[in-house]
Amino acid sequence: MFEFSKASLAFQDELRAFMDAHIYPNDETYRRQVDSAEDRFAYPPIMDELKAKAREAGLWNMFVPPKLAEHVDHDGLSNLDYAPLAELMGRVIWCPEVFNCNAPDTGNMEVFMKYGTPEQQAQWLTPLLAGDIRSAYAMTEPQVASSDATNIELSIRRDGDEYVLNGNKWFISGAMYERCAIFIVMGKSDPDNENRHKQQSQVLVPKGTPGLEIIRPLTTLGYDDAPMGHAQLRFDDVRVPAENILLGEGRGFEIAQGRLGPGRIHHCMRLIGAAQRSLELACERVTQRSTFGRKLSEHQSVREDIAKSFSEIEMMRLLVLKTCQRMDEVGAKGAMDLIAASKVSVPIMAQTVIDRCMQMHGAGGLTEDYPMAEAYNYARWCRQADGSDQVHLMALGKQVIRRYAAD
Amino acid sequence: MFEFSKASLAFQDELRAFMDAHIYPNDETYRRQVDSAEDRFAYPPIMDELKAKAREAGLWNMFVPPKLAEHVDHDGLSNLDYAPLAELMGRVIWCPEVFNCNAPDTGNMEVFMKYGTPEQQAQWLTPLLAGDIRSAYAMTEPQVASSDATNIELSIRRDGDEYVLNGNKWFISGAMYERCAIFIVMGKSDPDNENRHKQQSQVLVPKGTPGLEIIRPLTTLGYDDAPMGHAQLRFDDVRVPAENILLGEGRGFEIAQGRLGPGRIHHCMRLIGAAQRSLELACERVTQRSTFGRKLSEHQSVREDIAKSFSEIEMMRLLVLKTCQRMDEVGAKGAMDLIAASKVSVPIMAQTVIDRCMQMHGAGGLTEDYPMAEAYNYARWCRQADGSDQVHLMALGKQVIRRYAAD
Amino acid sequence: MFEFSKASLAFQDELRAFMDAHIYPNDETYRRQVDSAEDRFAYPPIMDELKAKAREAGLWNMFVPPKLAEHVDHDGLSNLDYAPLAELMGRVIWCPEVFNCNAPDTGNMEVFMKYGTPEQQAQWLTPLLAGDIRSAYAMTEPQVASSDATNIELSIRRDGDEYVLNGNKWFISGAMYERCAIFIVMGKSDPDNENRHKQQSQVLVPKGTPGLEIIRPLTTLGYDDAPMGHAQLRFDDVRVPAENILLGEGRGFEIAQGRLGPGRIHHCMRLIGAAQRSLELACERVTQRSTFGRKLSEHQSVREDIAKSFSEIEMMRLLVLKTCQRMDEVGAKGAMDLIAASKVSVPIMAQTVIDRCMQMHGAGGLTEDYPMAEAYNYARWCRQADGSDQVHLMALGKQVIRRYAAD
Amino acid sequence: MFEFSKASLAFQDELRAFMDAHIYPNDETYRRQVDSAEDRFAYPPIMDELKAKAREAGLWNMFVPPKLAEHVDHDGLSNLDYAPLAELMGRVIWCPEVFNCNAPDTGNMEVFMKYGTPEQQAQWLTPLLAGDIRSAYAMTEPQVASSDATNIELSIRRDGDEYVLNGNKWFISGAMYERCAIFIVMGKSDPDNENRHKQQSQVLVPKGTPGLEIIRPLTTLGYDDAPMGHAQLRFDDVRVPAENILLGEGRGFEIAQGRLGPGRIHHCMRLIGAAQRSLELACERVTQRSTFGRKLSEHQSVREDIAKSFSEIEMMRLLVLKTCQRMDEVGAKGAMDLIAASKVSVPIMAQTVIDRCMQMHGAGGLTEDYPMAEAYNYARWCRQADGSDQVHLMALGKQVIRRYAAD
Repeated sequence: MFEFSKASLAFQDELRAFMDAHIYPNDETYRRQVDSAEDRFAYPPIMDELKAKAREAGLWNMFVPPKLAEHVDHDGLSNLDYAPLAELMGRVIWCPEVFNCNAPDTGNMEVFMKYGTPEQQAQWLTPLLAGDIRSAYAMTEPQVASSDATNIELSIRRDGDEYVLNGNKWFISGAMYERCAIFIVMGKSDPDNENRHKQQSQVLVPKGTPGLEIIRPLTTLGYDDAPMGHAQLRFDDVRVPAENILLGEGRGFEIAQGRLGPGRIHHCMRLIGAAQRSLELACERVTQRSTFGRKLSEHQSVREDIAKSFSEIEMMRLLVLKTCQRMDEVGAKGAMDLIAASKVSVPIMAQTVIDRCMQMHGAGGLTEDYPMAEAYNYARWCRQADGSDQVHLMALGKQVIRRYAAD
Repeated sequence: MFEFSKASLAFQDELRAFMDAHIYPNDETYRRQVDSAEDRFAYPPIMDELKAKAREAGLWNMFVPPKLAEHVDHDGLSNLDYAPLAELMGRVIWCPEVFNCNAPDTGNMEVFMKYGTPEQQAQWLTPLLAGDIRSAYAMTEPQVASSDATNIELSIRRDGDEYVLNGNKWFISGAMYERCAIFIVMGKSDPDNENRHKQQSQVLVPKGTPGLEIIRPLTTLGYDDAPMGHAQLRFDDVRVPAENILLGEGRGFEIAQGRLGPGRIHHCMRLIGAAQRSLELACERVTQRSTFGRKLSEHQSVREDIAKSFSEIEMMRLLVLKTCQRMDEVGAKGAMDLIAASKVSVPIMAQTVIDRCMQMHGAGGLTEDYPMAEAYNYARWCRQADGSDQVHLMALGKQVIRRYAAD
Repeated sequence: MFEFSKASLAFQDELRAFMDAHIYPNDETYRRQVDSAEDRFAYPPIMDELKAKAREAGLWNMFVPPKLAEHVDHDGLSNLDYAPLAELMGRVIWCPEVFNCNAPDTGNMEVFMKYGTPEQQAQWLTPLLAGDIRSAYAMTEPQVASSDATNIELSIRRDGDEYVLNGNKWFISGAMYERCAIFIVMGKSDPDNENRHKQQSQVLVPKGTPGLEIIRPLTTLGYDDAPMGHAQLRFDDVRVPAENILLGEGRGFEIAQGRLGPGRIHHCMRLIGAAQRSLELACERVTQRSTFGRKLSEHQSVREDIAKSFSEIEMMRLLVLKTCQRMDEVGAKGAMDLIAASKVSVPIMAQTVIDRCMQMHGAGGLTEDYPMAEAYNYARWCRQADGSDQVHLMALGKQVIRRYAAD
Repeated sequence: MFEFSKASLAFQDELRAFMDAHIYPNDETYRRQVDSAEDRFAYPPIMDELKAKAREAGLWNMFVPPKLAEHVDHDGLSNLDYAPLAELMGRVIWCPEVFNCNAPDTGNMEVFMKYGTPEQQAQWLTPLLAGDIRSAYAMTEPQVASSDATNIELSIRRDGDEYVLNGNKWFISGAMYERCAIFIVMGKSDPDNENRHKQQSQVLVPKGTPGLEIIRPLTTLGYDDAPMGHAQLRFDDVRVPAENILLGEGRGFEIAQGRLGPGRIHHCMRLIGAAQRSLELACERVTQRSTFGRKLSEHQSVREDIAKSFSEIEMMRLLVLKTCQRMDEVGAKGAMDLIAASKVSVPIMAQTVIDRCMQMHGAGGLTEDYPMAEAYNYARWCRQADGSDQVHLMALGKQVIRRYAAD
C-alpha cells in the first residue's frame, strides 16, 4: 500500500477540515461573485479572504517538492505525498488557488525555481509564491499540432539587447485573469538548428508589453473557466530585454520537458477528486429520489453504475499513486511509461464516472447547480492538455512494444 | 430503401441551397449578434432577415403533417418526408428557427392545432405560425422525476372563472427568449382523482402574467443555449381566465402523450445532421494537419474513427427513418418500440461520433470556433429530454420482454 | 421501408414453418450425431434427411441471384430478398446447409456459375447445386496477412499441360468435411508481374490429389466447427491439369474480388438471426428466473440490456438491408462503403448482443445447452473473416475521408 | 508501492526460472498429451514429471497463508505475497497444478485445513497437499441462481448415522479429472430453519459413492477445460457416514463464505498473468507482421491498443494488490468492497485486453496455436464464477451507496 509521510497525513487532515469549514460553505459565494462581476476575469474578493485563511493555516504552496523546499515554509512534499492533497483540492474546481496550488501557476513557479536567475526569481517567483500575482505559460499555437514541440512557430529573434517575438498562441490558461502579470513564452529562436530540440527558447513577457494582444477568451464545451480563462494571444513585434530569457538560448525544449511531466499528473490527481466527489453526490441523490415506485438506489442499474464508478476511481487512484512514487524514486524520465498510462487513463475514466453521476442527477446534473458538469468539462479538455490522448497513447505504445518485442 | 415524396425531395434541394446561400455564411454574424447583445436572450436581428428570406422561399413550417396542413401553405409532410429536412437543419444548431421549425415551438404549434379552440388558435397559433411570437412548454419540475408525468406537482386550482397556478418548473426551453409570449403549463388540477392519468390539466399562461417569475436561465455543460435558453420559473398565485384551459380539465396527460412522441424524434433527426456535419468537418481537418511526419488522415486510428462514425451515422439514420415511416403508417402508439429505440440510441451515438470529431480537431474542437462542442452539448442533454435514457430503456425493455417471452 | 418481393415473402413464410417443423426439433439430434460420431467431420445422417425435405419443399439454393437463376428452379432472389431468409437460417448455426445455402459452398457455386467452363460446371457445379458434394475455397495463408491478396505466397507454376502447386493454407472452411470434393485454390502464377493484381490465379484441386495434405482442423475459441471445420493444408508439388484453371492465368485477384463482397454480407445476415434468437431466448429466460426476491425481468439493468440489444439488432438489420438494396441496384463496387460499414459493424454488435444474452443465462449460457456460445464464436471469428475488422475500417475510413475532404 | 516479503521475492525469482526451464518448453507436450489421450480427463504423464520437479524445487503449495503454515514446508505467504506468484502461474493456463496451486484444490485444501477434523485431514488433506489426489467443490446447481446460496436445493438428510444426498449440481470444476477423489458438497440439511444462513451443511462425498453420477462434462465457449473439466452431477440417494460432515450441521453457509473470498481473487491474479502474457505476445507479433507496406507496430491504432492494454493491466494489478493487502490486514470481511471491485473489474478488463491481443494475431489468434483464445474463455467464465458480475456489482453498489449516503 502506498504510505504517506506524517507531514502529508497532517496536511490531509487539515486540508479536509479547512475545506469543510471554508470551501464548501463558500462555493456559492465564489460562483456568484464570478458570475455577477462586470468582468468575468476579475479577481473575486472571496478568493483573497480564503487565501489569507489558508496561508495562516499553513496550507500554502504544498505542491513544492523537497528539492525546492528552500523556497517555502515547509519541508517539501514528494509527488506521492502531494497526490492525496491534490485529490482533495480537485473536489472543488476553483479551490486549488486558495492554497496557491493551482495550474498553471504551480508549474510556472517550478520553472522559476529551477531555471530562474536570482533577479527573475526576485521579480516574479516571490510574488507568485505569495499569491500576489498570477502567471501564464504560452506554448500551444492555433496553427500547428503543438504537442510536437518542434512544430512551434512563434518567432523569437535577437535584436541587439532585446528579443523580438512574433506569432500566435492559444489555450493560454490563466492569461485572462486580472492579476496575471507574467507570461513564459515558448518560441523558436534558432529555427535552422540541425538539432530540432535546440531550436526553441523561452522568454519572459510581462503582461502589458506593447505588441502583446489578448484577443479573446476561449471556451471549452460552454465554459470560459473564468476567472482564469484560456486566452488567445497575438505577439506583434513584442520586445523584451535579453535578460528575460530563461536558462539560455536553445534551452526551451529542455524546460518544456521538465515542466510537462508533473503538470498533467496534477490534473489527474485533481480529476480523481472530482470523480470521487461526483460519486458521493450521486450516492446521496439516489437515496433521495424515486421513480416508478422505487428509490433510485434500489434500481439494479444504478447500483451497477455506482459499483463500476467506485472500482474505476480506485484503479485510477492507484495508478496515479504508483506513478507518483516512481517519479519520486527515479524521476520523470524513468516513469515515462506510468506517466503516459496515467495521462491516457485518468481523464477518460473520470469523464465516464462523472457522466454516470450527472445522469443520476437528471437534467439538473447538467447545470451549474452541481459541480459535475464543470468537472466533466475539466476531464474532457484534459484529454487535450499537453498533447492529445492519441499522442500519449502513441508514445506509450511504442515504448511498450519496444520493451517486450526486444525480449 | 426509404422513399421520399416529390415534395420532400424538392424541399431537400431547396433547403440545401438555402443553407449554402444564407445559413453557413451567416453563422458568424448570428453568433456575434448573440454574444455581443446586451441581453443574451434578445432577438438577434439577423434572424428576422433570414426568416423573411426563408418564408419567401417557401421553406416555412415544414414540420406540419398532412393531417394539419390546413394551417399552412403546403400539403403537409409525413414524418418520413420531414426527417431529411430536420437532419439538414440540424447541421447548424440555431437555424431551425429560420424555417419556423424549431423546438419547442413546433410541438407547441401542434398542440394548438390539435387541441386549441378557435379563439386560442387565433390568439396564439396564428402569430406562432407566422413566426411573430415564440412559446414555451412548461412541464419539467425541479423537485420530482418529471419523466413520470404523474409526479407533476404544480397546482392548478379552479377559483371562480379563473385558474390559479402555484408551483415550480425548470428546463423550460424558449422561456428566456425575448419574444416568448405564451406558456403551455402542465399541472395537477385534480390530484386526488383515482385515475392517475386524469389528475393533470394544461393551461395557457401569457408571459407577463402577475405571479409568474422567470428566476434564471439554466446551463447545460456551460451552455445557456441563448437566445432561446432554458428557464427556471416560479408560479406564485398566477391567475388566468378559465377559458385558458386546453381541451378540458383532466386532459393534461393525454395532451402530453400526444406531444412527446414526435418531439424527441425531431431532436434525433437534427442530431444526425449535427453528427454528419461533424464527420464532414473532421474529414477535412485530417487532410490538413500533420503530426510526426504524417497526415492525420493517414493514421490508422483516424481512419478507424472515421469509418466507425460513418457506419454509426448510417445506422442511426436508418433507425430514425424506419421509426418515422412506422409512425406515419400506424401512429405513435404502434411505433412505441421504435420511438424508444431511436430515443435511447441516437443521442448517445451522436455524442460518441461528435466526441471523436472534436478530438480530431485538437483543443480547438472544444471551442466555439467549430460547431462540434455545442452539438455535443445538444446530444448530451437530449439524453435527459422528455425523460432520461434510463426511463426509455426501461419501457422498451419491458415491452420487448413481454413480446418474446409470451411466445 | 425495405420491401421484399412476393417470392421472398413466400419463401420467408415457408422457411419459418419449415424451421418450426424440422430444424428446432432436430437440433439436439444433429448435435448428438456430430458429437458421438467416430469422425467429427463425417456427414451427419440427419442432414441428408433434412436436405431431402427442404429440397422437396422448394427451399433450396435460395442464395442464387436472378442473374444466375438459369442454374436453379426458382427465379433468383436479389440480395435484399435473400437477406431475411439468411437471417432466419442464421438462427440455427448448422441449418443453412439443409437448404444448400451454407458458406463456403454458396460462394464457391457462384464462382463456378460466373467463371466456370461448361466442363467445370458439369463436373463440380451440378453436384454442388444438388448438395451431393461440398467444396472449399483456399485463400488464407498462415505466414502472411492474406487480407491483402497481393501477399499470397502459394506458388502455381505451369509445367507442360499441368499446374504445380506448392505452399500452405489455413482456415480453409469446409475442407475437413467428409464430402468436400473440390478446392478452389488461390495462388501466385506470375509473381513478377508489375501489375500486382495480375500475379494471381485460381485453380481447381480435387480432394485426394497427391501432394495435398490436410494437416489438421483448427479451432476458434474452443470450437472446431465440426463437421465442416476449418483446415490447415499443405500443397507439396500438387499437380492438376491445365484446364483446371478458372477464367485464365492472372485472373485470380479478379475472381477473389467478385467472391468476397457478398460473402461476408451473408455472414452478417446470419449473425443478425443469431443475435435475434439470443435476444428472444434471453427474454424467455429472464421471466423464468428470480434472484434476491425479484424476477430477472424486473431488474432495471436487465431491461436496459434487453432494450439496447433490441435497438442494436434493429440498426444492424437496417444497415444490412440498405447494403443489399444498394448492391442490387449498383453492384458491389458502388456499394463498397456500405458493405464495409456492414462488415465492421455487424459482427462486433452481434457479439455484444449475444454476450449480454449469454450473461443473462448464467453459467449455463456459456455451455452447449444454448446456442449463444457457439453463435458468439461465430460472431468473433467473423471479425477476421475475409480480412480483419481493421482492414475494412482502414479502407472505409480512406474512402469516407476522400469523399468529404474533396468537397 | 506494494512491498513483497523476501520469501515472496525469492519465490518469484525461482518460479520465473522454473517456468522458463520447464513450463514454456513443455507447453506443447502437455497439450499433445491431453488432446491425444483416449480419455481427455486422464492424468497427463508430463504433469507428474513436472510436479516432481516443482516439489523438489520447493515451489509447492505456495498458496498456503502464514496462519495455516503448519501444514506445509514454508512459512506461509500472505495474499499480497502470493499475488505475483499466482500472476506468473496464470501465464500458462494449465501450470498452477504443477505447483499444487490450482483451483479448486487450493480452496478445498483451505477448507480442510480450517474446518476438517484430524481424521478428515489425514484422509484427504494429506494426499491433496502431496498432490496425490484431486478434489472438487460442489455448490452450483442448474435450476437455481446459486450465487444466492440460500437458493441451494440439494437435500442432505440425516438418516441414522448416515447422510443421504439428493439433487443436482453443475459446473463442478475438477470433477471430471481422473484423480479427483473427494467432493465437498453443499446442500440443505435444515430447509425450514428460520435463519436462512443455518439451513445449509457441507458433507464429504468420495468419488465412486453409489448414487453419485457424473452425467457429462460441460463446455464454456467450446472449451471442456480438460483434463480438469466442469462436470454435471446427479446425487441419487447418495449415502455417506455422519462423520463426513464438515464443521457441523447448519454450518455450510459459513464455510462457503470463508471459501469464496480468496477464490475469485486467485482467479483475478491469474487472469492478470494471462493478460500480461497476451500483451507480450502481441508486442512481438506486431513487430513481425506487415500490412499495406508498414509494420503493424507502426500503425497508430496498434500502438493505441497496446498502450491501453498496458495501462489497464497496470490498473488491474494494483487493484488486486491493494485488495490482497487489505485482506491480509483486516480479513476478507473488511475488504469486501475491494474484493467485489476486483471481481467485477478484472475478468472483464482481462477479456478486453486479451481480445485486442487476439485480434492483432489475425485469425491465428483465435486458435490453439496461441494461449490467447483459451485465456479469453477463462476470463469470460470468471464473469460467472462464484456469482455473476451482476451479483457482485449489486452488492458493491449497495455498500458504496450506504457508505456515502450516510454522510
